[in-house]
Amino acid sequence: LNTNPVAMPFVGIWPALLTPLKADLSIDHRRFCAHVLRLVEAGCGGVTPFGTTGEGPSFTVDERRAAVDALVAAGVPAERILVSTSAAALPDVEALTRHALATGAHGCLMLPPFYLKGVPDEGVIDAYRYLIDRIADERLRLYLYHIPQVAAVGLSHHVIATLKRLYPHTIVGIKDSQCDRAHSVALADAFMRDVRVYVGFEPDLPELARRGSTGAVSGLANFMPRVVHALVAEHASAATAARVARVRDLLARLEPYALIPALKGIMALLDDDTGWLRVRPPLVALEPGALAELRQSIGVVGIDRAQD
Amino acid sequence: LNTNPVAMPFVGIWPALLTPLKADLSIDHRRFCAHVLRLVEAGCGGVTPFGTTGEGPSFTVDERRAAVDALVAAGVPAERILVSTSAAALPDVEALTRHALATGAHGCLMLPPFYLKGVPDEGVIDAYRYLIDRIADERLRLYLYHIPQVAAVGLSHHVIATLKRLYPHTIVGIKDSQCDRAHSVALADAFMRDVRVYVGFEPDLPELARRGSTGAVSGLANFMPRVVHALVAEHASAATAARVARVRDLLARLEPYALIPALKGIMALLDDDTGWLRVRPPLVALEPGALAELRQSIGVVGIDRAQD
Repeated sequence: LNTNPVAMPFVGIWPALLTPLKADLSIDHRRFCAHVLRLVEAGCGGVTPFGTTGEGPSFTVDERRAAVDALVAAGVPAERILVSTSAAALPDVEALTRHALATGAHGCLMLPPFYLKGVPDEGVIDAYRYLIDRIADERLRLYLYHIPQVAAVGLSHHVIATLKRLYPHTIVGIKDSQCDRAHSVALADAFMRDVRVYVGFEPDLPELARRGSTGAVSGLANFMPRVVHALVAEHASAATAARVARVRDLLARLEPYALIPALKGIMALLDDDTGWLRVRPPLVALEPGALAELRQSIGVVGIDRAQD
Repeated sequence: LNTNPVAMPFVGIWPALLTPLKADLSIDHRRFCAHVLRLVEAGCGGVTPFGTTGEGPSFTVDERRAAVDALVAAGVPAERILVSTSAAALPDVEALTRHALATGAHGCLMLPPFYLKGVPDEGVIDAYRYLIDRIADERLRLYLYHIPQVAAVGLSHHVIATLKRLYPHTIVGIKDSQCDRAHSVALADAFMRDVRVYVGFEPDLPELARRGSTGAVSGLANFMPRVVHALVAEHASAATAARVARVRDLLARLEPYALIPALKGIMALLDDDTGWLRVRPPLVALEPGALAELRQSIGVVGIDRAQD
């Protein structure tokens, strides 16, 4: 329906990138670029730096801009980068968004401001309006980001509908990371004709694909992008779907705060590189015992990067 | 018990400053400085910019540093400023803390990183250790900030005890803004001998003063600092305590998200200056109808800036 070619939402798997760190907990550009180049070579449509899985709000504006610049310098096409520009202070969101636009990134993924809680829809709408009106650039493609179990501020249907009405060419997608299939299906039913709905929870991908979703920003795609892609492309065998479900079940047995450290643990095991274990506080890196357990578990699940 | 004179925690009322904004929603330095100078002249021990009441995390590092610089340039003694340096990204906290130290501020008030939820105590401790170890400056006076109903990440007794043991001269106070008297009393019983406990909820001040608290970072002190001081100094009449309780009851009838806009509304009424009504999204400014209601209510309560 949207005939503005600039506004076309993305297709394929755009991994929710984990962010590798150096010993001083600064971003490790070398590992980060190598990781992304491998994902692009594996067929990913693009990549999504600095979402929740990437500990995005744990990094400053300068750190995030420098890491995106490093990806482009390493040869990642800018148009294959969807930058998560979420921050508590709107001028920080603005600075990150302007940088993404200047870089030629595909688009931006934006949370509502997440410090103050229980704010009314009007305030959430005002926040997006502040950003979009100040940027005032028709090249901006914005994806609304809904992850209430972490951000504690979510996006109601009223917020989404209002923003789409106000900015029909700017609002191109919704990332629904609530991990609740009924919520995702209701979003798809309400908005898929006008705004592309994407889910982050991989077991829900086939259901959403049937409803018109064309891709995913996925955490598991950091190490099994082809498998995740099969779920979206509707050519996944029952065995493939069952494997993804087993990986998610394995992760669901962890405390929620251990999810990102465990995903980094899987990377450490697959790359044989304990540097991947580092996280920035308030996260806590996997202990050696937990890593050993994880090694056993992924052996059972049978993650195989070359195939997956 | 702490014989390091640098580490003495504050005494008196240090208002949790509201942050006045210009029409473009940038910080209005002129109104901000005038507000602070009046509070200092009214006898406040100092002031606390950029806490929750001051919408602190809604402003960038640069905005916050410039506003503190403006206060000092306007003649506010730096040692009478307690800077809230909370931010989601630890290097931003570090930059704000270094600036506060370079300015000669009294100290810093710091939340744990607040984007990721349900994090373990170990991660919260790691966050404070990251900051204190990197700053590595014995002049640093740190106040731990507990406001779980907003930050969604709180400070357990274990976190406080561990940090005090690791950094006995740096950790000088706890700001408890949970607004739960039983919680505040338990904190005082556990820690007051070694770490000064302050509460933000004014009706609890007399109880805490009896247990050794020596001041408050108070929202109501933006416009009734003498009244709030009387509650701490234990010379408040029953009538004074009842007045403060009536103001809090009035505010408690609002939705929680309307508290900061209403406090700014009271400033707008007292200063006859609608510029005070502005808030940064995701907050929403008081509507004219709500402001008219508030005018009636504070008339009944009888707020009188010259006396209060």
